[in-house]
Amino acid sequence: MTHTYSIGIDIGGTNTDMGLVREDGTIIARSSISTNVYTELAPYVHDIMTCIGKLMHENSVEQIEGIGIGAPNGNFYTGCVDNAPNLTIKGVLNFEEEIHKYMQVPVVLSNDANAAAFGEMVYGGAKGLDNFIMFTLGTGVGSGIVLDGKLVHGSTGGAGELGHNILIPNGRQCSCGRKGCLETYTSARGIVQTYCELKGIPVSDAVNSKMIGDLANQGDPVALKTWEIVGDQLGLAMANSVTFSAPQAIFLMGGPTKVGEPLLKPLRRAFEKYLLNIYAGSCEIRMSELKANEVAILGAAALIKMKS
Amino acid sequence: MTHTYSIGIDIGGTNTDMGLVREDGTIIARSSISTNVYTELAPYVHDIMTCIGKLMHENSVEQIEGIGIGAPNGNFYTGCVDNAPNLTIKGVLNFEEEIHKYMQVPVVLSNDANAAAFGEMVYGGAKGLDNFIMFTLGTGVGSGIVLDGKLVHGSTGGAGELGHNILIPNGRQCSCGRKGCLETYTSARGIVQTYCELKGIPVSDAVNSKMIGDLANQGDPVALKTWEIVGDQLGLAMANSVTFSAPQAIFLMGGPTKVGEPLLKPLRRAFEKYLLNIYAGSCEIRMSELKANEVAILGAAALIKMKS
Repeated sequence: MTHTYSIGIDIGGTNTDMGLVREDGTIIARSSISTNVYTELAPYVHDIMTCIGKLMHENSVEQIEGIGIGAPNGNFYTGCVDNAPNLTIKGVLNFEEEIHKYMQVPVVLSNDANAAAFGEMVYGGAKGLDNFIMFTLGTGVGSGIVLDGKLVHGSTGGAGELGHNILIPNGRQCSCGRKGCLETYTSARGIVQTYCELKGIPVSDAVNSKMIGDLANQGDPVALKTWEIVGDQLGLAMANSVTFSAPQAIFLMGGPTKVGEPLLKPLRRAFEKYLLNIYAGSCEIRMSELKANEVAILGAAALIKMKS
Repeated sequence: MTHTYSIGIDIGGTNTDMGLVREDGTIIARSSISTNVYTELAPYVHDIMTCIGKLMHENSVEQIEGIGIGAPNGNFYTGCVDNAPNLTIKGVLNFEEEIHKYMQVPVVLSNDANAAAFGEMVYGGAKGLDNFIMFTLGTGVGSGIVLDGKLVHGSTGGAGELGHNILIPNGRQCSCGRKGCLETYTSARGIVQTYCELKGIPVSDAVNSKMIGDLANQGDPVALKTWEIVGDQLGLAMANSVTFSAPQAIFLMGGPTKVGEPLLKPLRRAFEKYLLNIYAGSCEIRMSELKANEVAILGAAALIKMKS
């Protein structure tokens, strides 16, 4: 059998990870460079393309279908990264144009949560689904919405920011400047804050969401209560998202979800409780089936499979 | 010039309104029958088709492009009305099949708010836009979402129920059985409830949203405060909807919106306040440009223009 290959690039503030991906979702080889040593796009893309050339050469791959990039503020429509606050390279960065100086292949860009959603559809548990939503819990809360088999990018390219849906009017202060965003409750930081509030202790680096997960699985009542609250909040947000696009499934991924049942049990209960009756039974909550250390590269690589 | 025509049917619990619509959005002629005298689909569709035949004959129209139907619980995918609680004809009603016994033309069905959104795109203020959301305020709060020029129907056909987005967790009791839905605050009934709460009087038939609108325009401080609260709530809901599909515009229609500035001023202020910064300036709130007594028929007729 002749295989086909693509490249997935995950641009983070600290590192840039690249992978050579086979059509079946196997990452054949990967490579990484530092992101934050660059202040200009040209040398950064030069070094990325050198890595890609090496990955291809070492694995006797002569052709790739395209290059997919998951990046903060990645704009699908323009092929640019628009003023990403956590990158040391400033301004509007035209990756597509710069990459085409080296290689004439399709270049598709989107933000990381969108890429994760699309990776789930092409390589993961959402195969065969064409209408679902992905929620990613981490430092923030991201989301990617797939409708009729396509990522929803909206008129600006910035659609699908459900982490900044205001869940509780006049609620917790969010880093975006507004109050009560979902992210302030169900991000790793939000979970820590809830735990510390219940404990009556100040938020500090001594507490993290992994620890609260471990405590819950050991039966600690305050930790269990924390996940119950988080599950209820996330279940409400997910039920609200169903009134928009009536998805077949909602997927969930990210560090805090590793806690398992202490989160998933109250989450499923809340989702059922808050779901409008006309949607009953039509949408299920599922965990991402991609490996945590592969999802970013697979998601980026999947972007080139996007229907235009 | 040769004109083309279509038929729009608006099915309400009490009356069924039909119109012969020219391609420029002019309703050439209209007709109406009672809905609630029927308990079976066959005689109901028979009488509808008789009316349509008459409308066409009297206006020397020999051919129509299709028949669009806006109906409660209208399912786009199946061409059926599914168990609409406010209809005297019970069960799953296959309008498409029944109509095809009389006339072989495309039949497209959707719910009334979706039809209103599509009507706005084909005949109203959303001409040329392919990404917007319509909110309809009335007895309830409906919504229709247009993305890439298509109505969002989702996996079930029931997408776009933003009136049942939970705005305030554990808030007012909604007729859907859950609490805090947008509809409980910004429907005509919700507006009356807010006014009565501010006045400290019981909700009764002596108060309606039209009256509260008139009072506000006469400078009554309690009425003005009511619209300020409603505008704030609706602005929050609209800002939240932008995080989903990043629309170019959000349209607004329905009886309670006729109050004008007492609602629109706080609504625009709230929308700006609650909008995530990445969307600033990308989406404006606009009033429907279709006439109140024409929107249902025009919206239904527009459905047949839907890209498949």
